[in-house]
Amino acid sequence: VKRTIERKTVLVVGAAGFIGRHVTKALAEAGHDVTALDVAPPEESPGVRWIQGSVTDEPLLTGLAKAHAQVIYLAGGSLPASANADMAGEVATNLHATVRTAEICARAGVTNFVFASSGGTVYGASNARQLSEQHPTKPLNAYGVSKLASEHYLRIVSVMTGLTIVTLRISNPYGEGQRATKGQGLVAAAMAAAYSQEVLPCWGDGSVVRDFVYRGDVAAAFVAACRYAGPSTTINVGAGSGKSVLEMIAAVELATRRKIKVDFQLNRVIDAPRNVLAIGRAAKLLGWRPQVPLDDGITRTARWWQAEAERAPTARDEVA
Amino acid sequence: VKRTIERKTVLVVGAAGFIGRHVTKALAEAGHDVTALDVAPPEESPGVRWIQGSVTDEPLLTGLAKAHAQVIYLAGGSLPASANADMAGEVATNLHATVRTAEICARAGVTNFVFASSGGTVYGASNARQLSEQHPTKPLNAYGVSKLASEHYLRIVSVMTGLTIVTLRISNPYGEGQRATKGQGLVAAAMAAAYSQEVLPCWGDGSVVRDFVYRGDVAAAFVAACRYAGPSTTINVGAGSGKSVLEMIAAVELATRRKIKVDFQLNRVIDAPRNVLAIGRAAKLLGWRPQVPLDDGITRTARWWQAEAERAPTARDEVA
Repeated sequence: VKRTIERKTVLVVGAAGFIGRHVTKALAEAGHDVTALDVAPPEESPGVRWIQGSVTDEPLLTGLAKAHAQVIYLAGGSLPASANADMAGEVATNLHATVRTAEICARAGVTNFVFASSGGTVYGASNARQLSEQHPTKPLNAYGVSKLASEHYLRIVSVMTGLTIVTLRISNPYGEGQRATKGQGLVAAAMAAAYSQEVLPCWGDGSVVRDFVYRGDVAAAFVAACRYAGPSTTINVGAGSGKSVLEMIAAVELATRRKIKVDFQLNRVIDAPRNVLAIGRAAKLLGWRPQVPLDDGITRTARWWQAEAERAPTARDEVA
Repeated sequence: VKRTIERKTVLVVGAAGFIGRHVTKALAEAGHDVTALDVAPPEESPGVRWIQGSVTDEPLLTGLAKAHAQVIYLAGGSLPASANADMAGEVATNLHATVRTAEICARAGVTNFVFASSGGTVYGASNARQLSEQHPTKPLNAYGVSKLASEHYLRIVSVMTGLTIVTLRISNPYGEGQRATKGQGLVAAAMAAAYSQEVLPCWGDGSVVRDFVYRGDVAAAFVAACRYAGPSTTINVGAGSGKSVLEMIAAVELATRRKIKVDFQLNRVIDAPRNVLAIGRAAKLLGWRPQVPLDDGITRTARWWQAEAERAPTARDEVA
């Protein structure tokens, strides 16, 4: 990191999602002047300018882009399942919106565009112990293809316009605020199963290994990316170590002090056996390393689920 | 090639383009029952059922897909320049149409879907003497990104639906019928410059090496792909050898017996220095090898340009 960007105005697109809320909060705490854009209604968040609107509203987006030095792009959903069901629709909505937003930002004079990609899906199947950013990319689902296609288009936008694009390939984020209803992640699904005593469906035999990264660490990576002043680049953001699905379920059981009933579904074939990110580049370029050990992160997450369960035991998934 | 596909009905989507016209003709000559779909008006072509319509007309496309065993997808333009200028538009039109068509074909019971990708652009910059299908893909322009993104989405469609997808990565096709007006290729541009005595703009110093493949050989590869009965795959289609831009200009000068005035434009930076395809897989899986030597192909092409020039010397680019 050679120099610090002067204007600290940051626009967060897709600010009301699981990651978005934490990124927005962390940016405000770090002293940035933050505008949060989302189609969802405004959240209470001190020091953040909330705007309810869509990235497809081009006049709105253009106006906002002109007023901000940096844009963090988190829109586009986190739902691999729905992307597979309607790939062409995915292209017409999410992929199109991502590329269009970058083009508008470049034209509006934005200097840095931070894109949230998916280290958990862009690489695909591999036997590598750790996946570096140079590893070949062959996603196994449409969500990963959409993220990879976005990365490639943004790379061309950067070459054509000079807009600096920082792509953060995030592994499997977890933490307080992640819901189980949206199929967002194993930890949330396991927490929901622990507190509801409903059965947790598990694809395969539970041996697949994933890289789980705590929400606070992910938010810190985005804050660090806003200080980055080098050329366009792609950076893994993960724990750098792996846990099997069975290990994660056991960790959730320990933290919640509840048993989880697991239904092993052995018929799914398109899962990568191992996906663990190499995170050396993040340390080198962003000065970022994950700070929250898995046990701590799971304990904090369990505490949040416990509070939720006590607060509204019958409407667990609907609470804002 | 283990077995031959029984139903020989083939739908060619994007049949009126440079490649499309030759593929359609070659398929009819090989005894296939061919339907040609294009937004452009029908062409005279014996034994081919021409339909003027768009891939975005879903009822039409669904009906056609149900009536054909195989689909060859050549729609989506051949214009790298325009793709760069409006990337989001490119996503919303070409990429969306490609993925949507494949999804419709899978649902309609099509067995084979042959996709025309671009071996000339999907790989990007590399020092490799020859590029195999396993070579990393990092396109340098939006056209290449669109082709690569299509490949990835189609791969997922194949996994999800069982539709066999054969992706042909074509290098730089040339031959009779290729126009210079659309920026479709160096040979056409050089032919136009030779006969018009206008200046030929040349990006760089003319040293970049490309793989040029004759239109008849490309058409034969598509016919061979319609006999393919293995699993989904990606196959390079090219000459397997390279020529520099200067060598190609010299070859066109020789065949046309005219001098070409070249304007070297040294400021373009996003060209790969070398792009030559390895074509062993095409030989192995399709029994296909290029048959027309470059000199022959250039001579045939020159003859066509000569006839065009004599027929309508002042409207060279507008003749149908």
